[in-house]
Amino acid sequence: MNAPTEFTIRAATEADTATILDFIRRLAEYEKLSHQVTATPELLREQLFGAKPAAEVVLACEGARPVGFGLFFTNFSTFLAKPGIYLEDLFVLPEARGKGYGRALLVHLARLAVERGCGRFEWAVLDWNQPAIDFYRSLGAEPLSEWTGQRVTGKALADLAARPLF
Amino acid sequence: MNAPTEFTIRAATEADTATILDFIRRLAEYEKLSHQVTATPELLREQLFGAKPAAEVVLACEGARPVGFGLFFTNFSTFLAKPGIYLEDLFVLPEARGKGYGRALLVHLARLAVERGCGRFEWAVLDWNQPAIDFYRSLGAEPLSEWTGQRVTGKALADLAARPLF
Repeated sequence: MNAPTEFTIRAATEADTATILDFIRRLAEYEKLSHQVTATPELLREQLFGAKPAAEVVLACEGARPVGFGLFFTNFSTFLAKPGIYLEDLFVLPEARGKGYGRALLVHLARLAVERGCGRFEWAVLDWNQPAIDFYRSLGAEPLSEWTGQRVTGKALADLAARPLF
Repeated sequence: MNAPTEFTIRAATEADTATILDFIRRLAEYEKLSHQVTATPELLREQLFGAKPAAEVVLACEGARPVGFGLFFTNFSTFLAKPGIYLEDLFVLPEARGKGYGRALLVHLARLAVERGCGRFEWAVLDWNQPAIDFYRSLGAEPLSEWTGQRVTGKALADLAARPLF
């Protein structure tokens, strides 16, 4: 595969907030989860570029144009007693696919994990997304098939917090 | 259910490092994953109580004695543009089970999530652990059944990081 012209990966800055939110919305659309998106530019700016950033973003660019992104944060393995990198979102614009941007973003984050002394690099995939599953397998990722995520959110979270401790 | 005598939940301190590691090892044993544990007291102390803590721990205590723990860190939802609490480990000593400590730890963390403005409280469960699955369902947690975690670790992580970007 030939490298695309003027390909770069760079850390996102506050000026990229609108671009990142656009990518988040497009990814949600692809995942058929658009109804779950309530993020606003103001919230996202504060969370990513405010006093206490909750996550980091890297952008894949063709020339000056961002064509994909990875949003990640630090998780923790008790078994290793080491931090890890958790990739929450990975997305490449449809017209920029097949050029290796997705893989480049993953390789970039794997390097970042090694540089930061992390023991793991993790993410999740939707079960029906077979092309993505095959792609991740080719990169050396193992599926955590035995585990199922559990989530409490919205009213259920308020209700759980309102229960007595005993 | 009557409250146990002298029940407390408190944040762990550096002096609890050995206790926490003991709980981590016992949990790994229960999960049949002991072979994956390489954590040492030194590593754990640095990661939890060093200059840049990677996770937080709450302890459930009977009198002065810790009988269970929850280890958690902050994750991030791009859809909500809000942080969340991710519970990595939850464990109660076998002899202290059935008294409501596990639920109390989960309610405590749900309250913490609300206090901190988090949009979600999440964790994962092993598919064969039906009692835990039933318990989580009774607390209002929904299973993220469509998602499968992907992990790159050890040699696979080094190999991925060593690939060219393109």
